[in-house]
Amino acid sequence: MPGQNPLVAWLPARYSFSMAVTDIASRTYNHGWRLDPIVRSLLDTDFYKLLMQQMIREFYPNQQVTFSVINRSRHVRLAEIIDEGELRAQLDHARTIRFSKKELIWLAGNTFYGKTQMFSPDFINWLSNFRLPEYELHKVDGQYELHFHGPWTHTTMWEIPALAILNELRSRQVMKGQGRFVLDVLYARAKAKLWSKVERLRKLEGLRLSDFGTRRRHGFLWQRWCVEAVKEGLGPSFTGTSNVLLAMDNDLEAIGTNAHELPMVAAALANDDTELRWAPYRILDQWRHTYGGNLLIALPDAFGTKSFLRDAPEWVADWTGFRPDSAPPISAGEEIIKWWKQKGRDPKEKLLVFSDGMDVGSIEETFRHFAGRVRISFGWGTNLTNDFVGCAPDGSVDLDPISIVCKVTSVDGRPAVKLSDNPEKATGSASEVERYLRVFGDAGRVRTAVHV
Amino acid sequence: MPGQNPLVAWLPARYSFSMAVTDIASRTYNHGWRLDPIVRSLLDTDFYKLLMQQMIREFYPNQQVTFSVINRSRHVRLAEIIDEGELRAQLDHARTIRFSKKELIWLAGNTFYGKTQMFSPDFINWLSNFRLPEYELHKVDGQYELHFHGPWTHTTMWEIPALAILNELRSRQVMKGQGRFVLDVLYARAKAKLWSKVERLRKLEGLRLSDFGTRRRHGFLWQRWCVEAVKEGLGPSFTGTSNVLLAMDNDLEAIGTNAHELPMVAAALANDDTELRWAPYRILDQWRHTYGGNLLIALPDAFGTKSFLRDAPEWVADWTGFRPDSAPPISAGEEIIKWWKQKGRDPKEKLLVFSDGMDVGSIEETFRHFAGRVRISFGWGTNLTNDFVGCAPDGSVDLDPISIVCKVTSVDGRPAVKLSDNPEKATGSASEVERYLRVFGDAGRVRTAVHV
Repeated sequence: MPGQNPLVAWLPARYSFSMAVTDIASRTYNHGWRLDPIVRSLLDTDFYKLLMQQMIREFYPNQQVTFSVINRSRHVRLAEIIDEGELRAQLDHARTIRFSKKELIWLAGNTFYGKTQMFSPDFINWLSNFRLPEYELHKVDGQYELHFHGPWTHTTMWEIPALAILNELRSRQVMKGQGRFVLDVLYARAKAKLWSKVERLRKLEGLRLSDFGTRRRHGFLWQRWCVEAVKEGLGPSFTGTSNVLLAMDNDLEAIGTNAHELPMVAAALANDDTELRWAPYRILDQWRHTYGGNLLIALPDAFGTKSFLRDAPEWVADWTGFRPDSAPPISAGEEIIKWWKQKGRDPKEKLLVFSDGMDVGSIEETFRHFAGRVRISFGWGTNLTNDFVGCAPDGSVDLDPISIVCKVTSVDGRPAVKLSDNPEKATGSASEVERYLRVFGDAGRVRTAVHV
Repeated sequence: MPGQNPLVAWLPARYSFSMAVTDIASRTYNHGWRLDPIVRSLLDTDFYKLLMQQMIREFYPNQQVTFSVINRSRHVRLAEIIDEGELRAQLDHARTIRFSKKELIWLAGNTFYGKTQMFSPDFINWLSNFRLPEYELHKVDGQYELHFHGPWTHTTMWEIPALAILNELRSRQVMKGQGRFVLDVLYARAKAKLWSKVERLRKLEGLRLSDFGTRRRHGFLWQRWCVEAVKEGLGPSFTGTSNVLLAMDNDLEAIGTNAHELPMVAAALANDDTELRWAPYRILDQWRHTYGGNLLIALPDAFGTKSFLRDAPEWVADWTGFRPDSAPPISAGEEIIKWWKQKGRDPKEKLLVFSDGMDVGSIEETFRHFAGRVRISFGWGTNLTNDFVGCAPDGSVDLDPISIVCKVTSVDGRPAVKLSDNPEKATGSASEVERYLRVFGDAGRVRTAVHV
């Protein structure tokens, strides 16, 4: 019988729930906080940005390209929610960041899509001096006008951090001053919600899905939780993340190829309608010069998928696949499969990547629809990393995700345009959109509400 | 424009999610853990135990009373789940605990139910030397036989820690080796589940509810989370907790009056059937000698509510109220209201406390049924502090609560009996139960499944 039981050691652990042994140095240091930076690494971006950056540096080192943030959810008046001083402090902080040695060594030494030395030593060396260029910020009618002017090689890198900063500043503002348990329950519900999705996705045998949710994430720490949870929950079905930092930290594959900015810049540089018509293919030709294999995934929808396929040169059918990004997934996929067959290609050897506002319901439907007919994979974005719908204890919708993008708006002083398969996602001036529609046609474009 | 922004201070906070600055001393200390004690304070018990202990010391200082743990959920074979060595280590550890100075000062100086000096200086002084008595532990047919023999003043204090230890050891065993995110989602779901209950309860205007969930909690830290969350979520509708330690730490009211052990011991001490019939009232008379006011709440169901009311002396109708603890709440309440009216008392001035396996549905129903007719309050137990039903990511039911109690089984060598309004909750030998049924009758007793 015990008396003094030698097995007993008193633990601080019991109280770590809220009363951990106080680390006085950290506490004192924390009293001096001025800023809790949202972006802390230049690798906290999408992998395709680095791939495109290398190619841009090769073919377009001198083009001046302006990127601009566009909040498609006009009803959310961001300039009334986010403090301008806080926004400037975060953007300014992002501009102080450089690639660290460890990061550059990892980029140089890691294997991407099975390929070593994806990034040339010359490019890695150039990155070591890279920093984000200046920004231009105004408030206009309750929204922020946020533009990035400069060489395409530099402005392209603002897209992801700018969006991540805006989204996280909004989340932080909404949660400011809320009670400890209200916040605890908010995250508990969001975790439970994500896990219910994981449980549904687990039933899809052979599923291949990756995280594409960096730009519109609720916050960095939340994206990290989501990625790590889905990694544990889906096992090998979770093929990686577009976020380079999270890929490095979690030994996941970095996922991504290229974006609409390639055909948009190429189109803007066209000197006449004929050059305009061939611009999307010319830049894909440059892409395949830089990359091969699994990176040969084309976005068909910048100026409408129907016209893209109709006018595509024969070699486009040799590419690994397509990422339809604005048409409804099933009809877009069917159209591409039909086209491959017309070209004498076997769709079973081809890949379709679906990444336009996917969530568990549309993933299930699309997966089952194409089962056995074509290889498919999913890029799961906003509905993975920012689904707080119905999670706020007070029933507020202030954390529901918004549809915000950062797009090319001008190239060497010329306006840039995206038509998209969904006119709701089109960008550019009305007159230029009209010209592009004359060149590419309006066939197959269908207006659909855009939520994220 | 920035360069080096003086506003920026790098935080460890970003990494505190999983990579906080490592406190090396704590980490090293933790490597030496031998035991993570479940019970760490003698105040980690139900308030009524202390109230009863003081009265027992006054009227029954020499009675030898055995308490025994009874697992009514026989299908859960506790001795095959919980390691005997771990159980002994936890019980042994509990025996090393004394009341701390701070705890005794708080007991002496705090106001309970609006009354100062609820505990006499003499009792407080006696507590300073109190420790839990020995235990007797065997494995029998997949269950633990766990008995506490000794003076009633001492054995009574084992009820709550013994049950809390068994329940938490079971939870820990079930969760051992589970993945980080599986556990995170488990708790996320349980938090979300509790908060949905809080949101429903918030709609009941004038609700009075307190935590009665210590004995069958999932674990100490989880009970603390639940109590603190409900305190924030329900505000003044949350009137306190039966857990004395949590009441002290959170400046909540300590809630509780008395338990079945009082009439059970009194009945066991009866020398003949006439004494047996009057035993429940004799001990209530002793109770009102020790306490008054809000503490005059009687348990009517130890040997059946119908016979208790039928034979009760006039002064019982002067008491503040009843805690019906085994009959269905609405019919039990109606029966008592009818009895008060027969006795010429106004139910609107009386109090009913419902605490038998309540959950949000039965609380809502009972609350609405009695609205405006009688004062009511709720003791919310196992379904507050141990509701993990449907929360395990693997669909396991191994964390579903079990129905386990610690009851008086003998008094000075004589067998003890509880009849209850629900024969499923009866305890005692068959022959003694038969004798009690002869004396008190079987009227109004209804068999109902017992879940918690």
